[in-house]
Amino acid sequence: MAEKSENFPDESAGKDKEIPNGGNSAKTKEDFDLASVYVSDAQYNRNIYFDTSPQAVRLYLLYNHWLPKVLLYFFILVVLSLAVFEEPAVLPLPMWATMLVELLCVLVFTFRLAHYARVIPRDKFWKDAKNICIMVVLMLTMVDMIIYGSLKAANCYALRWSRVLRPLLLVNVTEGRQLRRAFRSIRNALPQIFYVFLLFMFSVLMFSLMALKLLGKRGLTTINGAPYFTNYLEIVFDLYVLVTTANSPDVMMPAYNSSFFFAIFFIVYILINTYIFMSVFLAVVYNNYKKYLKEEIRQLVRAKRHKMVRAFAVLQERREEGGEPVVTQANWNQVVRLVRSDISNAHRELLWSVCDDKNQGFIGKVAFVQLADLLNIEVITLKTRPHPLQRLCPAFYLSAPSRLLCRMVQHRAFVIVYDLIILVNAVFIGLDEENPMIANSEWVFLALYLIEILLKLYVFEPRGFFSRHSFWNWFDTIIVVSALIATIVNSTLKSSGGYTSRQILDIVFILRVLRLIRVVDSIKRFRTIINTLIRIGPAILTFGQLIIVVYYVFAMVGMELFKNKVRFFEDPSDPAAANCGNALLTGTTFAQLHYCKNNFNNVVSSFILLVELTVVNQWHVLSSGFAIVTHMSARIFFVFFHIIVVIVIINIFVAFVLEAFFVEYSVDKSDLQTSLEKKIEELELAVEQENLQDNLVDAMETIDNDLGADQSPREKKPSLMFKIASKRYRTVDALLQRMFEADLDPDDFAENEDPNAQTDGNFANPTFSSV
Amino acid sequence: MAEKSENFPDESAGKDKEIPNGGNSAKTKEDFDLASVYVSDAQYNRNIYFDTSPQAVRLYLLYNHWLPKVLLYFFILVVLSLAVFEEPAVLPLPMWATMLVELLCVLVFTFRLAHYARVIPRDKFWKDAKNICIMVVLMLTMVDMIIYGSLKAANCYALRWSRVLRPLLLVNVTEGRQLRRAFRSIRNALPQIFYVFLLFMFSVLMFSLMALKLLGKRGLTTINGAPYFTNYLEIVFDLYVLVTTANSPDVMMPAYNSSFFFAIFFIVYILINTYIFMSVFLAVVYNNYKKYLKEEIRQLVRAKRHKMVRAFAVLQERREEGGEPVVTQANWNQVVRLVRSDISNAHRELLWSVCDDKNQGFIGKVAFVQLADLLNIEVITLKTRPHPLQRLCPAFYLSAPSRLLCRMVQHRAFVIVYDLIILVNAVFIGLDEENPMIANSEWVFLALYLIEILLKLYVFEPRGFFSRHSFWNWFDTIIVVSALIATIVNSTLKSSGGYTSRQILDIVFILRVLRLIRVVDSIKRFRTIINTLIRIGPAILTFGQLIIVVYYVFAMVGMELFKNKVRFFEDPSDPAAANCGNALLTGTTFAQLHYCKNNFNNVVSSFILLVELTVVNQWHVLSSGFAIVTHMSARIFFVFFHIIVVIVIINIFVAFVLEAFFVEYSVDKSDLQTSLEKKIEELELAVEQENLQDNLVDAMETIDNDLGADQSPREKKPSLMFKIASKRYRTVDALLQRMFEADLDPDDFAENEDPNAQTDGNFANPTFSSV
Repeated sequence: MAEKSENFPDESAGKDKEIPNGGNSAKTKEDFDLASVYVSDAQYNRNIYFDTSPQAVRLYLLYNHWLPKVLLYFFILVVLSLAVFEEPAVLPLPMWATMLVELLCVLVFTFRLAHYARVIPRDKFWKDAKNICIMVVLMLTMVDMIIYGSLKAANCYALRWSRVLRPLLLVNVTEGRQLRRAFRSIRNALPQIFYVFLLFMFSVLMFSLMALKLLGKRGLTTINGAPYFTNYLEIVFDLYVLVTTANSPDVMMPAYNSSFFFAIFFIVYILINTYIFMSVFLAVVYNNYKKYLKEEIRQLVRAKRHKMVRAFAVLQERREEGGEPVVTQANWNQVVRLVRSDISNAHRELLWSVCDDKNQGFIGKVAFVQLADLLNIEVITLKTRPHPLQRLCPAFYLSAPSRLLCRMVQHRAFVIVYDLIILVNAVFIGLDEENPMIANSEWVFLALYLIEILLKLYVFEPRGFFSRHSFWNWFDTIIVVSALIATIVNSTLKSSGGYTSRQILDIVFILRVLRLIRVVDSIKRFRTIINTLIRIGPAILTFGQLIIVVYYVFAMVGMELFKNKVRFFEDPSDPAAANCGNALLTGTTFAQLHYCKNNFNNVVSSFILLVELTVVNQWHVLSSGFAIVTHMSARIFFVFFHIIVVIVIINIFVAFVLEAFFVEYSVDKSDLQTSLEKKIEELELAVEQENLQDNLVDAMETIDNDLGADQSPREKKPSLMFKIASKRYRTVDALLQRMFEADLDPDDFAENEDPNAQTDGNFANPTFSSV
Repeated sequence: MAEKSENFPDESAGKDKEIPNGGNSAKTKEDFDLASVYVSDAQYNRNIYFDTSPQAVRLYLLYNHWLPKVLLYFFILVVLSLAVFEEPAVLPLPMWATMLVELLCVLVFTFRLAHYARVIPRDKFWKDAKNICIMVVLMLTMVDMIIYGSLKAANCYALRWSRVLRPLLLVNVTEGRQLRRAFRSIRNALPQIFYVFLLFMFSVLMFSLMALKLLGKRGLTTINGAPYFTNYLEIVFDLYVLVTTANSPDVMMPAYNSSFFFAIFFIVYILINTYIFMSVFLAVVYNNYKKYLKEEIRQLVRAKRHKMVRAFAVLQERREEGGEPVVTQANWNQVVRLVRSDISNAHRELLWSVCDDKNQGFIGKVAFVQLADLLNIEVITLKTRPHPLQRLCPAFYLSAPSRLLCRMVQHRAFVIVYDLIILVNAVFIGLDEENPMIANSEWVFLALYLIEILLKLYVFEPRGFFSRHSFWNWFDTIIVVSALIATIVNSTLKSSGGYTSRQILDIVFILRVLRLIRVVDSIKRFRTIINTLIRIGPAILTFGQLIIVVYYVFAMVGMELFKNKVRFFEDPSDPAAANCGNALLTGTTFAQLHYCKNNFNNVVSSFILLVELTVVNQWHVLSSGFAIVTHMSARIFFVFFHIIVVIVIINIFVAFVLEAFFVEYSVDKSDLQTSLEKKIEELELAVEQENLQDNLVDAMETIDNDLGADQSPREKKPSLMFKIASKRYRTVDALLQRMFEADLDPDDFAENEDPNAQTDGNFANPTFSSV
């Protein structure tokens, strides 16, 4: 339960420290640093119990800087990808080289950990399970390296067993919060899953017993002539595989061929075990996932509020004796500037005007606490500058033909025409490119796409067109320009030496096809679905990490167990190619289906094999193949992988996508007002006085690619506009928070607060008053 | 939208009819009939706009009688199973025989429809889409029979095309409400599914184009030596199949064998199209299913209330001039007796005491309206009679040894001993039954199980032991007694002629294994899961009907398209068996895998084939097989089946199981108080005065099989007890209602009611006052 406490590190931080600058004295740089650290921690939901001494705060700021973080992840990547170069290697490197790199990585991780130890109090450091875990991993790695090195030097058999531990670094670094949370929610769901799994296995065992009794004595044979359903353990395996549907209907055919009635047995089996039990697994996983995540998010929200209250305590001053403590605009500005130096002055003023809606020049605690959420709302600043051409030669740019051109490009028909061009292009791509007419048509299409981009740049303000959020504009331009470059390179090569690089041609083809994707964006219904997918994308990355951790462990174990048992021969005429270089595989389905390249001989093919096992189909052929070359019990490895990855992790992934989609749908359709969106509405009101509300709402709906459309040079616009990407969240936590916010009981937050906090508009400070 | 109006048929029924017996006059038999029809309709959520004339009410009572309903379903079963006897037949019957039976069925359906036409007003009858649909189906069937008969008589080619329409009868009979609702929720989800599907197909087409460009020109070949990825349509089909994972990793192997990098293409494809899009399909289906079902249930609840209000209006009398109308206990009793003649007087009195909690002898409208819900709560009446043996010879039954025996049987150890016996039995079943020691051990186990049942019957009151809700007691007894009979028959046959009937032996084996299932019941965690599954069982039957309707249509079409193209030969040495009797199949995977019996040659094998297609694995082999013997476009049939059944129906099934499990879990865990359970709590209070609350709650938790345990002869008990199977619902509608009740806004019900209805405890009658 050590991880659990991670959510409340600041709880007792006030113990050994009195309120800094509680009075009206001027704030020092240290105060601003401390406050900005609290705000930034609240914004990103970091829960690190750091020392509040100025020196530690400076170290902590350095610790949170993006550069060491990126370096850390880079070295984690390096240590993980060492598997590519280590025996069994894709690209073999001498042992000393990989050892040296690994040593370097271990040093980096040690340094990072030492840095962390300086930031947080000593006793907290030793109580935190994730630090202990990293230290143990690093120490075991060193031990393993020494043993391995000396054994190798003595030419003995040696095993790099510590490689299995490497992904633990990814989980236990401070930044791996999302990943740890995913693991925790899995661990919490395990007991429930376990009981359903036991019942499910009981069902499989019962059906196997029945199958043995019904079919074992009938003298049936499989396609290969082997006896059918005579060995109980084989039946259990076959029926387990049937649950995954991978051997359907083959496993049924011998029985079905002998009598119609046996089909009933298999249909009942599939109904109960595949359909009902697998749905129950999903239901159990989904239910638990939701329940525990909700609890964690609740704690996160509470911790966030605590941090903001502490930041407020640092910055507060009293306007008059006995009055409520407040934060002045100057101090607030200073902190916001420190926390997010990337936002513009205007944007900051907008945020201030939301906080200080009475325009008093200072804000109380309630308004201040909102800041973390406000910073998490993506506000897009639109500067309605005139087009550069308009500034350079207004006479030309504002002339009648130029205006006509602008109107044409902005017209709906322009989009339709280009959609048609894309469709024609798709047909041309499908045709044979050896035909010179078709090969040359490529230049026409390239030219058309280039013209489109240039026209749009002529009409829309370039900086607006290429703003950070204009995903499709960026996408278009990059694809078209790369296609142009690749096509030119390709034809240069072709015309110079008659030689065409296959790689470049591949890139050209991929780019051509990718260009067609743009058509999706012009259909509104598709855009909604795509936007939803893009929005849940970052959160899906957490699952990507989760999968990589699990895959890595299985790949390392699999490589030790199965390496070089099955080999792939590039030359199909090699006699060894027919049985994958292993006589035991002669005549097996594994060899017949040319599965030799599906092996554990290096980390890349191991990963690909694990993906195939995740997809499930034919996994029984793969697992049987490896069982034949080693031992029947090798199947346990594959069944275990199936249970972990398919039954648990994939179901959690499905649960996450379901939940995320429901949130997106309910927000799209029913205007569910989460607290974040209420704030956005206030922001919209602040902009409404400029009479652009409708345009803003439109722009929100049709999101990025229409961004420039508001800025036609004809209309008179205010020089600065804000657009709120209301459904965007800067962090995964913010999305999760929103996912469960509707379900959270507001009273739960009030738990640690003064009971009259909501009414008098001020929080009691639990951290300072209750201890 | 004709079906939608089905929920409000009674809305305007009051138009042409004044309030019957609004005063204090004695109620006639007709009044009670009418009121009981309203109450019964409300209880079962029947929404039939019947005529309220006494004659029509009598006809309507007859219409709702169980016998004509059972007959109707019997004849639907007959007409559906005619496919077994018609060409292509499993058991061929002469044409005149099936035609005669079908004619009989058509007559029965016509009669039933005529009966219905007499019950409801003429204009309503003709406005109802389902009546029109049945009439059209019946007429088309007649036309088809005449054409088919005359063509056959003239020895021409003839097609029984009207067979496709038969399942429409199942959907459109008055009793098919659940099924119609399932179809409606699918129809409503279709637009959303359609857009996601378009996007998904766009993605498949784009990837196919990329695959064609990347892989088509490399001269790769598949295992069979065919060119790999050269034909665009073939690629689209292959990649569509890959989404279903059925050809993974085979479709990837040629490319993967040529280079590592192509694996990336396939992994990205699977990630996007299999994992992301399939989850999105589930999310969209689930979301829509929930949304529309919620709306329908809301309307059902409103309609139910209307019906109860009308029943009240029929029964009401005024105690004093100008007072509130009330219903007296006598009238209430009379109606309840008519609606449910099966409940005991005590149970009825209990229900009355819940309605009339002030013990006034009459109830108002609010209390009366509850009646429909009250009747839907399963109340089990426990009569604590003494054991028959106690009555017959109390001296013996209450003697010390007898009491000791009773205590032993009731002890926890007794259950554990029998669980161990079951486990030993499982091992013995697994061993070879040819061994005479093991064959004889079967008698020992049978004897042990018989002794267990006899002991339990000695200890527990037999009628309590075999009460309607004691699922496991019934299960045990039936299994053990059948096993005893089958074993005796089997050994008699064996000893008499040395001949062992394989069928009887099979039954013996199945019964032996089924006996082992009992062990599940003694583990509490398992029991919870099993009970949940049993509870959602009836609702799953609706999906069973849905699947049968869809399967039937596809089977009929498939049989016309593919019959006798692929044939199965019993004798594997027959040279035709190698290519399923069709030269086109020589050397194909279809023939190699011995799939010949997977054909459309009769309705039974068609259904089994469709199950295999639903399971998805190898469906591409099956569909390619049928495409080879007919035409490539035959694959469309199979792809269409996949879209309808796997993407839509299976997802709705999963959505239903998920939702049902969530309801069960949240009720189990968080004591969510639905309105139904509030009523149950009142009922519990009524029983609590007998000081049995704890036992009752225990009994509720551990449900059926412990039912008898309360009734040990030692304790002094009241002679009558009630137990509420709180989580049981008599009808699927009631379960659905509970599933969505928590989400329903209570204000929605009040829409048609007087605004002060909730406060003054009386409803305005919208039906009579607002028109």
